Formats: sequence, structure tokens, C-alpha cells
Amino acid sequence: MSDIITVVAPVNIAVIKYWGKRDAKLNIPLNDSVSGTLDAKVMCAKTSVCVRPDFEEDRLWLNGENVSIYKENFQKCLNKIRILAKEQKSRDEKFLTWKVHICSENNFPTAAGLASSAAGFACLVTALSKLYGVQTDVSALARLGSGSACRSVYGGFVRWHAGSNPDGSDSIAKQVVDSSYWPEMKVLILVVADNKKSTSSTKGMIITAKTSELIDHRCRVTVPSRVEKMCEAIKRKDFPTFAELTMKDSNEFHAVCLSSYPPCVYLTDVSNKIIEIIHRYNEMRGSPKVAYTFDAGPNACLYLLEEEVPKVISLIKYFFPSSSETFIKGLPCPDLKEEFTNELQISPMGKDLIKYVIYTQVGDGPFELNDKNHLLNENGYPKTLV
Amino acid sequence: MSDIITVVAPVNIAVIKYWGKRDAKLNIPLNDSVSGTLDAKVMCAKTSVCVRPDFEEDRLWLNGENVSIYKENFQKCLNKIRILAKEQKSRDEKFLTWKVHICSENNFPTAAGLASSAAGFACLVTALSKLYGVQTDVSALARLGSGSACRSVYGGFVRWHAGSNPDGSDSIAKQVVDSSYWPEMKVLILVVADNKKSTSSTKGMIITAKTSELIDHRCRVTVPSRVEKMCEAIKRKDFPTFAELTMKDSNEFHAVCLSSYPPCVYLTDVSNKIIEIIHRYNEMRGSPKVAYTFDAGPNACLYLLEEEVPKVISLIKYFFPSSSETFIKGLPCPDLKEEFTNELQISPMGKDLIKYVIYTQVGDGPFELNDKNHLLNENGYPKTLV
Repeated sequence: MSDIITVVAPVNIAVIKYWGKRDAKLNIPLNDSVSGTLDAKVMCAKTSVCVRPDFEEDRLWLNGENVSIYKENFQKCLNKIRILAKEQKSRDEKFLTWKVHICSENNFPTAAGLASSAAGFACLVTALSKLYGVQTDVSALARLGSGSACRSVYGGFVRWHAGSNPDGSDSIAKQVVDSSYWPEMKVLILVVADNKKSTSSTKGMIITAKTSELIDHRCRVTVPSRVEKMCEAIKRKDFPTFAELTMKDSNEFHAVCLSSYPPCVYLTDVSNKIIEIIHRYNEMRGSPKVAYTFDAGPNACLYLLEEEVPKVISLIKYFFPSSSETFIKGLPCPDLKEEFTNELQISPMGKDLIKYVIYTQVGDGPFELNDKNHLLNENGYPKTLV
Repeated sequence: MSDIITVVAPVNIAVIKYWGKRDAKLNIPLNDSVSGTLDAKVMCAKTSVCVRPDFEEDRLWLNGENVSIYKENFQKCLNKIRILAKEQKSRDEKFLTWKVHICSENNFPTAAGLASSAAGFACLVTALSKLYGVQTDVSALARLGSGSACRSVYGGFVRWHAGSNPDGSDSIAKQVVDSSYWPEMKVLILVVADNKKSTSSTKGMIITAKTSELIDHRCRVTVPSRVEKMCEAIKRKDFPTFAELTMKDSNEFHAVCLSSYPPCVYLTDVSNKIIEIIHRYNEMRGSPKVAYTFDAGPNACLYLLEEEVPKVISLIKYFFPSSSETFIKGLPCPDLKEEFTNELQISPMGKDLIKYVIYTQVGDGPFELNDKNHLLNENGYPKTLV
């Protein structure tokens, strides 16, 4: 077994949103959620972990910067892993007294607001549980670090069951279908140019849970029925139903945020314009061909089937003209045969309101890198430091 | 009695919002609502009505334009008045066979999206009921024309009771307190520069009632309790409670709109910036000193006490710099002793995002003009035509 373990983990984008905690310490959510795991070849976190007798303290490097490992969510994961290793006697006692070095990087700008913590913690706990040799539900470990990270430990479509046990032991993710089940499912992430600071999701969830008079109805009534319908739609590969549920849930999530006091607002004029265009496009096409969903930020995530990709990229380029030569990133951009001709009676927006588009797809869960491409050198220190 | 009757009627701005109809034909709402009636000396509709034996047909002029009187809402009001007059024998039979000319104007741009139909229909039915001499609840008549118009038939703060009778006979407005009860209550209307077409409130209400999974909870649970608290807060002149309820209800109303499918979005980036600034300002002051509320459009309506007006106008001028020399319209702008010094850690916005501000106050209900300043000449035709 190698001294250093390196894991790559994907991001995930929820189609039924997680918002609000039943238990803040254990990151137990108020409601079930469902997400698609996105291809780690396009967007991922990569984490190397290493334990050695000569390390003086636990240390953490994030995106090239030495940061404190004594943040609560890192400590929760690390402690839990060490407790499990001790209980399971998976490593000898000496090993468990040694310190750990952790080095993690995202291959996409964290500033883009693309839920990097989900990939990051899925990656971290997968790497640590391999390093410490523990047998456990990795999703529950990831959840301790960042709630939605528990969904990034599986590929395909994943359901996070809120669970009902006080200790969170049944608040775990389960795969709905794997990534090969619905291979036509593609994703376009529209990164909106925006420098507005909005309420962090951790803070937003607390405000909403405490003040919204609508969240209880969402968690008790609308989400439970929507989650079941969503899982069935995915299993049936029923895109129109999948799309409608996705859009309704995104809107309801943002509605609940808006009903908080003070209100949490994440959608901007550009986000709302994207919403309007997608509805008009779907209307023109006679059934939902594209679904939008927005996390706690202005970026749109569009789910759509492969055959729609050229049309929708043309549409985005038409309504959101860009001066960037690398406007479409990620998977190879398909041939845009026909230019979009505007039948929606909506005028194109100003230039560069969307910074770029990431073209990706539903993909697999975390995997270990065996190519020695570690982020830590043989002494257990980062190979590159910014 | 004069041949021509002219009435002036005020607009009203709800602090507990009306959204969604139990009966679309009769304009019976899903929930009670509460509003402040605004000073008709600042913003008003003015309507002259005239009946003569030589008129060939019922005719209507709106803001200088000859428009069809055969729109459903006009017909509903006119028919109901004639039926009542016949039943009550308030005029002789011949009079009831004669045609009517109606001429109505707003003294503020309808394009500003300032709920002109409420003032317009309150004015129309007040004028017609005087002309036809009918004894009836004028608010119920106004409601037939435009739901929220029923609140403009009284001054001060007004509650529209949704009622439960199928015929709408108990869906009427009642005064909570008159305009002299809380004379310190002032209003600033921030007219946001915007040329976005948004869903009309008539259409929006239908979409919301049909598709929102949150509206039912709002109408059944949150609004009924909030309406009671609001009326008590007004009677106690408890501004902090009044303000908090007003803001919460505005946000909840927009949340419910957003949860519709497709979503109805009325707030823009500028609206949301106003919301953020007000919350930060209230936080800085230690208790709510200003309350925002937004109807089905981006304009903000701020309720505040007189002593706050200079401070808040300074704040608006600081955050929304204007190149207009008549930025503050309406009541005389008070002396802005101190310039606003920014302690909110929010940067000022770009220029002219707010077109102008209307400074006004809570005022009286409709009244008849006895100064012969009619909009119709002695022959029953508009004095001025655009």
C-alpha cells in the first residue's frame, strides 16, 4: 500500500434541492434531495492524503494555499475517520497517532460558485477512508463535512435520504441509477458574470429554517411527493417530467429563500432572463426540452438530452452574445449546424453577461488515481504551492 | 342636481397583498388584504360622468383616448349600477334608458406601473353611484371593476374582507382607521427605471392559483394571522410590527409568484438592492424604521414615519444617484439637513436606476369635486382630447 493516496471526485447539481437542516452539527437535512453527479473529467476536486511518523501536525492545503485544518467541518470528518479506524482496528495503533497531510485542488474556479465543497469533501473522505482502511458508508462521512457532498460519493443520479435517526445514521445517499443508465443526459452550466456577494448557503439555510413560513410546507408536503416522482421519472427516462419537476423545485427553493426574513435572494436579472428564455423555448417546442436549476447563486445549470445540445448552445449564444473565444468549455462543442433564429420575441441581452458555459454530462463517482499523479511529494508536502 | 358629476379617487398600496381569486368573474379574492390609501392630492384618478337623452351610446375616454366601454370590467360596473338604480327606483325610468359618457384621467403616468386601475375604478363607481343615486356598498361595486379598487373607496388604512358568500356580497372593504389616526405615516414610492414587460397581475394571479404549491398555505395559514396582527399594529400605531409584517408579506407574495409555473418574477436587481439596503439600514438603526413593499412590478413603496423622511431621502439619493432635477416629486421635500454617511458597507449604484421618487402620505377616500372642473364639457364630451 502506498504512503500517499489520491482521489478524484465529481461535483453534483441537485434537481430536488437541499435547503435547511434538522441538525446543524450533523448536517442532517430537513428533506430528501436528488442530484445528478457530473463528469469528473470535466469538473472535479482532487485530493491527496498522506500519513507519516515525522509529520508534526495535521495540515491542509486548499487550492495551493495552506489553510487551517481546525475548521469544524474538517475536524468532524477527520475525527470520525480516526474513531472508526480505531474501532475497526483497520490500522495499527501507531499509525493512528501519526499526523496527516491533506492537499486538495479543484480544476474549476471556486469563485464561479459551483458548489466546490461537495466535490471537495466527497474527495477528502473517500481518500481518508482508503488511507485509514475503514469500512463505512462514505456518504455519511462526506455529509459531516458538507451536506450535499454526500451525494458526490456516487455517480449517476443520487438520492440523499434525510433519514429520521437522531444520530444521522440513516441520513445517507443512495444511487438511483448509475451514469450509464441515461447516457443521453447532458448538462450546460451557464456561469453568470456577477460580483454580488450573496448570503452563504450555510447562513441562508439557518435564516430560512428560522424565519420562512413556507419552508415547513415545502419539506412536509411538496418535496416528499416530488422526490418520488423524480426518481420514477429518472428510472423511466421521462425527460419532460424530469424537466418540469426540476424547474418547479428550483423555483420553489428560491421562493422559500425569498420568504425568509431578511430574504435570501440568489437569482439576478440574468438568471431570471435565462428562466424566461427556457420557458419560452420549451413552449415553442411543445414540451420541455431543457430544464434549468439554480443553486444558491446566479449560475444556471441546464439539464438536457444530447440531441438538444447544439440547438441550445446556439440559443445561448444568440441571447447572451460573448466576446470570449473559449465561451464553451468542457466536452467538445458539437457542430452548431443551424444558427438560432429568434422565434421567441425576446431581444438578445448585452454582451458578456454570461462569462462562459461548461458543457458536461452525468458521470461517475469518486475514483482513486493510480498514476502517481499525487498533489503531495514523497515527503508529504505539496508539489506546487501558489 | 348637476348633469355632470366629477369625482377624485386615491390609489392604495397594500401592506398585506391580494393575490389570487376565489371567483374570477366576481373578483372575489383568496385572502383578506390590508392597504394604506394614499393622498389624492399627490396621486389620483379623476372621473367625470354624464347622462343625457341625446347620447347615442355609452362612451368612455381614458387619459384622453377614446377606448371601448365594452370591456368586461367596465360593463360589470355599469350594469350593476343600472340594475341597482332600477331596483331602488332612484332615478325615473327615462333616465335609465339614456346613455352615459365617462371621461377619466390619472394625474400620474400609468406606465409607472402604479396600480392606476384601483384609483380608476374606485373613482368610476363612486361617480356613477352618485349620478344614478344608488345606495349600496361602493367597495363591492369597485371590486367588480378591479379587485384592489375596493380598498380605494375609503381613506386611511383599509381591510378588504375576502368574505365567504358565493355571490361576493360580503367581499367588501372596511376602514381600519381613518387618515387622521396616524398622521405621521408617510410614503415614498421609488419608481424604478425598467422597460421589462412582466406578466400582468390578472394573468399572474391565474397562473399562481393554478400552479403554485405554496399559495394555499399562504391563504389558509400565514395571511389570516398576519392580517389580524397588522390591523392591531395599525390601531396601536406600532411601527416596528407594522413594518416587519409589511416586509414579510411583500416577500411572501413574491415568493408565491416565484413558485408558480412558469414563475412570475416582478422584482429586479434594483428592487432587490432596495430590499438589501432597507434591511441593512433598519439593522443599523436597531429596529425597523422603514418598510418596503412591492406590487406586481419593480417599484418599491416605502412606508415610514415623518421623522425618518429626510434621512431616508438622503439615503436613497446616496445609493441611487440621479441626474434629475425633479427627483423628489409629490409633497414638498423636507430640508435634508445631514447628508447620508455610508455605514452600511454597500456601494452606491449606477446613475438613474431610480427614475424618481414620489413623496406622499396616507390620505382620504374619494370625494366629489364641486368646482365645475369637470373633464366633460356641457355637451358631455371631453374638454381635452390628446
